[in-house]
Amino acid sequence: MDNFTFYSPTCFVFGKDTESSAGSLVRRFGGTKVLIHYGGGSAVRSGLLGRVKASLESEGIPFCELGGVQPNPRSGLVYQGIELCRKEKIDFILAVGGGSVIDSSKAIAAGTVYDGDFWDFYSGKRIEQALPVGTVLTIAAAGSEGSPDSVITLEEGMFKRGASGDAIRPKFSILNPALTQSLPPFQTAAGITDIMAHLYERYLTNTREVEVTDRLIEALLLTMIHEGPRVIADPDNYDARANIMWAGMMAHNNSCGVGRSQDWNSHNIEHELSALYDCAHGAGLAVTMPAVFSYVLEHDVSRFAQAAVRIWGCQMDFAHPEVTAREGIERLRSFLVSIGMPKNFEELGAREEDIPALVHALCWGDGRQGTISGFVTLNEEDCTKIYRSMI
Amino acid sequence: MDNFTFYSPTCFVFGKDTESSAGSLVRRFGGTKVLIHYGGGSAVRSGLLGRVKASLESEGIPFCELGGVQPNPRSGLVYQGIELCRKEKIDFILAVGGGSVIDSSKAIAAGTVYDGDFWDFYSGKRIEQALPVGTVLTIAAAGSEGSPDSVITLEEGMFKRGASGDAIRPKFSILNPALTQSLPPFQTAAGITDIMAHLYERYLTNTREVEVTDRLIEALLLTMIHEGPRVIADPDNYDARANIMWAGMMAHNNSCGVGRSQDWNSHNIEHELSALYDCAHGAGLAVTMPAVFSYVLEHDVSRFAQAAVRIWGCQMDFAHPEVTAREGIERLRSFLVSIGMPKNFEELGAREEDIPALVHALCWGDGRQGTISGFVTLNEEDCTKIYRSMI
Repeated sequence: MDNFTFYSPTCFVFGKDTESSAGSLVRRFGGTKVLIHYGGGSAVRSGLLGRVKASLESEGIPFCELGGVQPNPRSGLVYQGIELCRKEKIDFILAVGGGSVIDSSKAIAAGTVYDGDFWDFYSGKRIEQALPVGTVLTIAAAGSEGSPDSVITLEEGMFKRGASGDAIRPKFSILNPALTQSLPPFQTAAGITDIMAHLYERYLTNTREVEVTDRLIEALLLTMIHEGPRVIADPDNYDARANIMWAGMMAHNNSCGVGRSQDWNSHNIEHELSALYDCAHGAGLAVTMPAVFSYVLEHDVSRFAQAAVRIWGCQMDFAHPEVTAREGIERLRSFLVSIGMPKNFEELGAREEDIPALVHALCWGDGRQGTISGFVTLNEEDCTKIYRSMI
Repeated sequence: MDNFTFYSPTCFVFGKDTESSAGSLVRRFGGTKVLIHYGGGSAVRSGLLGRVKASLESEGIPFCELGGVQPNPRSGLVYQGIELCRKEKIDFILAVGGGSVIDSSKAIAAGTVYDGDFWDFYSGKRIEQALPVGTVLTIAAAGSEGSPDSVITLEEGMFKRGASGDAIRPKFSILNPALTQSLPPFQTAAGITDIMAHLYERYLTNTREVEVTDRLIEALLLTMIHEGPRVIADPDNYDARANIMWAGMMAHNNSCGVGRSQDWNSHNIEHELSALYDCAHGAGLAVTMPAVFSYVLEHDVSRFAQAAVRIWGCQMDFAHPEVTAREGIERLRSFLVSIGMPKNFEELGAREEDIPALVHALCWGDGRQGTISGFVTLNEEDCTKIYRSMI
């Protein structure tokens, strides 16, 4: 196991009706003037935004609002948010929504207290300071509610890039599984896929002797495999929603990923798809993951065989471990299709003729030098083959 | 799943040579005058205490010292520490040792800033304020490095009782697995047993639909079952030590125990043994757990059967689930014996004739009203039968 530091100081308030504590939590963590940041109309229509505002009002905390965050959140709204926060002397950002809203909030939080262009952070600069952020989560997916990460799409060129820093870990996150019951099945399934990707990207490691984190990742994947179909069959199943929601946080606050190298090639390969086609990140991952895993299987057959046996319950073929390894990947692919995810370029809305542009953006965009690195290093030819295998 | 709040703001610095960061971590978390609290001579002899002092000196942080913490830490030294902290105007306590040292440090931290008797906190009062505490851990066992809990023995009457509060969660914990390599096999095994007990006590729940935490607990138990025998066979196995150390923290910071009722009957029943005989807590648990589990098996056969199948790899006997359930408990018992733990009263150094006194202290001590409660409620007759089954 490698040396590491793990610091996850977010206060998680989990369960039914917990959004009513938003005001007291903002006060506890020092907020005196709040920006409520949210997405489209669903938070308004469901009454959630109203309940959150009432909670702030009952604590006497003034606030202003900025809605309109899109899936795959854009730089334009971040610049707008930064300007608003400075003008209104905001000292706390409350994200009400999913990963896109939280990521946009984190970008605004870092940008507001930074003299330069906030995009510097998404070009490699570590975030050291930010306004405090709190969240009221409405979808189990991105894990941004417990992570030090944010992903934003730069509108000039449609590059999707990530930034990181303990300063943007939320001070608190309110996780009410009931808020996710109204999600359409496709979004629920895309969230499940994103969570599973966060786990697989950590599972694919070159670090030896990582039994404890292997087992924790497997535990969370087993949870998703058990609860995913239940929640697709019965969207109102609170308990299945609750198990998925806690698994989603644990999958990405890195307690199960410490002390080991991680992959993230699937995320990087997918990011170009959702940047170009504006498809759901989880849907893109459903097509990307099996393609990437099949391509890199030979790099460590025993790791994929372990996944097949421990996660998917496959019988080990001791004479032909690669058969078992491949069976595990096929089980993942079938599972994702079974919960309603796309299986290829066509179902995703991607086009074969865009592959050269996807590969170029992936391997050369934003300072990269012709390759992406993770579990294995992939060059343009590798990435072309991977995208082609998704057709 | 039940509603819950989870807040674990400890910064964990994990890996080789990490004790050299003690000084900078104390500074980061605001300490300007430190009490170094430790146990016997092993921290001195190994040179660890010297390295920690050098790290404080290099940051220019003054300190004083209080050694002498015993296993099953006593109230007398806590009173002494409180007096010393007040006299020396200490503002940070650095625990260098295992769970006993950390628990004693937490008690001093809470007592120093409290007007009344610190024992109030061990009689049910919640800890709301305390001096900040940091730890340099030397044994994977108690999980106190990441928990809001402390257990102290009151010398008048030898009552062993716990206190709790987020205020005593360590600000940082330095976890260097190499520091545990010099532990005698018995202490290593007792630590492994304590970690496994923290997991079983959470596993035994009456809350339904807790797949995610069930799976996480199983993951950590599977880790202990894999790594325990490896580290007993080869005490210098750094990687096995590392996996156990992170599992020990995760077992008790409650990320795997949220949203579910928990047991803690085994801990309570054991506490009377270590209070009376001053035996190792883990050794007491090795004798207690199988006895308690066998006694309460009928309360939820399927839960014990699930443990047998998922944790111990038993084949499910679908016609006779209680056979499988019992097999899982026997596997636990054999495992604990195989790593060198005692299996009965005699090996533990306990005496049959003390059972009435043990039961009385357990069921009536410190404000209890004749029963203890957890997975099931146990009265004096139940507790007598359980102790007798350990003979």
